[in-house]
Amino acid sequence: MSQTVRIALDAMGGDHGPAVVVAGAELALARRPDSKFLFFGQTEQVAPLLAKHPALQAVSRLVHADIAVRMEDKPSQALRSGRRRSSMWLAIDAVKKKEADMVVSAGNTGALMAMSKFELKMLPGIERPAIAALWPTLRGESIVLDVGASIGADAEHLVDLAVMGAATARILLGLKRPTVGLLNIGVEEVKGLEEVREAGRILRERPMPDLDYVGFVEGDDIGTGKVDVVVTEGFAGNIALKTAEGTARQIGGYLRAAMRSSLGSRIGYLFARSAFDKLRERLDPRRANGGVFLGLNGIVIKSHGGTDAEGFAAAIELGYDVVRDELLAKITAALGRGVGGEPQQALIGAAS
Amino acid sequence: MSQTVRIALDAMGGDHGPAVVVAGAELALARRPDSKFLFFGQTEQVAPLLAKHPALQAVSRLVHADIAVRMEDKPSQALRSGRRRSSMWLAIDAVKKKEADMVVSAGNTGALMAMSKFELKMLPGIERPAIAALWPTLRGESIVLDVGASIGADAEHLVDLAVMGAATARILLGLKRPTVGLLNIGVEEVKGLEEVREAGRILRERPMPDLDYVGFVEGDDIGTGKVDVVVTEGFAGNIALKTAEGTARQIGGYLRAAMRSSLGSRIGYLFARSAFDKLRERLDPRRANGGVFLGLNGIVIKSHGGTDAEGFAAAIELGYDVVRDELLAKITAALGRGVGGEPQQALIGAAS
Repeated sequence: MSQTVRIALDAMGGDHGPAVVVAGAELALARRPDSKFLFFGQTEQVAPLLAKHPALQAVSRLVHADIAVRMEDKPSQALRSGRRRSSMWLAIDAVKKKEADMVVSAGNTGALMAMSKFELKMLPGIERPAIAALWPTLRGESIVLDVGASIGADAEHLVDLAVMGAATARILLGLKRPTVGLLNIGVEEVKGLEEVREAGRILRERPMPDLDYVGFVEGDDIGTGKVDVVVTEGFAGNIALKTAEGTARQIGGYLRAAMRSSLGSRIGYLFARSAFDKLRERLDPRRANGGVFLGLNGIVIKSHGGTDAEGFAAAIELGYDVVRDELLAKITAALGRGVGGEPQQALIGAAS
Repeated sequence: MSQTVRIALDAMGGDHGPAVVVAGAELALARRPDSKFLFFGQTEQVAPLLAKHPALQAVSRLVHADIAVRMEDKPSQALRSGRRRSSMWLAIDAVKKKEADMVVSAGNTGALMAMSKFELKMLPGIERPAIAALWPTLRGESIVLDVGASIGADAEHLVDLAVMGAATARILLGLKRPTVGLLNIGVEEVKGLEEVREAGRILRERPMPDLDYVGFVEGDDIGTGKVDVVVTEGFAGNIALKTAEGTARQIGGYLRAAMRSSLGSRIGYLFARSAFDKLRERLDPRRANGGVFLGLNGIVIKSHGGTDAEGFAAAIELGYDVVRDELLAKITAALGRGVGGEPQQALIGAAS
């Protein structure tokens, strides 16, 4: 890794395109000054924006890309039309060519996943990528994965998710041996999906020096921070993540209405203003923006498509921290130690 | 239906057993005075509790049951040991024998489902039961189903859920033609599970006079009340429900901490006290306690196992309202009209 962290950005991704990407990079640079940026996008759109931010422009290079992957493109369609010439592809390619340490895109998730898999390939022994989210809890933060990279998972894929999630928690949360739970619909061993039960059996029986498997957890255990890592397949994980975001917004709405409901509550609001400001910051979904794609031979960060500059900056900073802490090498080593079996054994040499 | 609503209660179900069931019935009776109760449970435990509530005792009958289904029993085990003699079985049996209009249990969900299916049988054309939850939203309330009756669903089962959910919304929410959405992980038609996409195609193409299918919805659309009925299979639905409950508790914790954080916030709290009380009531998960089992030839209400008397009363009152509004006859009629096909056609005569 170079001295600075070199960040490739898909300038055309997301609902708001280059305006949010450039402004987000400016904010991230202020907080992570040893960053360099590679922007990929349409020159006529991106160059004027960069020109307005001289400090950012000084540490950035802009590479022209003809094509922008659209949010509604199917992954196969995006691969056909965007290969080798879309901003998303070229940004990923910079990581492959070691010109960047990581890539951030707010674009089409399916296309980003397909292109990343195609270009960067998977880590040995891992068949499918996963998206890990940092989830704010009453105890601090937990890692929840997969929150939408792929639908369905057999027992071995769930075990891989546990190992990758624990490696991520060790780095991002600074834990030695993170606790891991399998998301299920009932804590009794008799309940839930067959593959979740089988994954639980494997996690109990196989030696796992890098994680502490504690059993099944339910949806309401995520927010309390009962475990450091919550493992589930991508359909249920995405629904859990979005339901929690929606519930937080809903309660924020109730709270605003309650504070406006009477003269007393309006006076009370004025007295408690700074407490409300802190609470608002705590509930700000932009703070937790950015999912880490795990299982790939390279670091790819997915930002929410609809985020603003502050949210996009949070995604960049998440990627920065992952690079600084050498997440990838640590996951590879953990897969070698934790999962066992033929393909993983070969990794011990490769990673250490 | 008789003049009064006759309610069978599994007095032994739930984490707290008869104490909560009897106290809950007392509260429900105060608010629904034209109720009668049939308690099933161990006489030596239930009789002394009833004796303390003379008004309740006057409209109640206690039937002794030797066995209590345990929370950790597998459904098959509960059926083997509890058939014909557990409090849960006997309470369901009272509905079958038309001695009660509905049954409420806070016991083991899987056992309640298995016994209900075995005793009451399914409505014609429906293969599997579903649990529908009343979900508080920014617009009012929505029906979400299935929240945990069974895992996985093919396209036709999802369509059945849509029809049953819409019938429930017409009754419990008083809507003429409820809007219905399929829970998915992305609103684009290209995304999500194959069976969800196929169900979407059927709901768009088949004539559905009693519901208005609007397309896919995501987890964060539930709390905004984007649609009146949210349809999903039981694994994802249960995780969504519990994640929302957990998030509400988590934010309640943040809010309490924020209000205690400074002198100003404590003064503010005093001024805004009544607004906070209203908010607390709004977030009280006990208010939404009770899931309706749909698809059965009889009305079965599942209460949360860990609830208190106030929550158990809410479950009883939900069942009372369902009985009063003749939900079952209306679902049967809607299945005949809405779903079409051979087996359902026969229902039109039966229901009208």
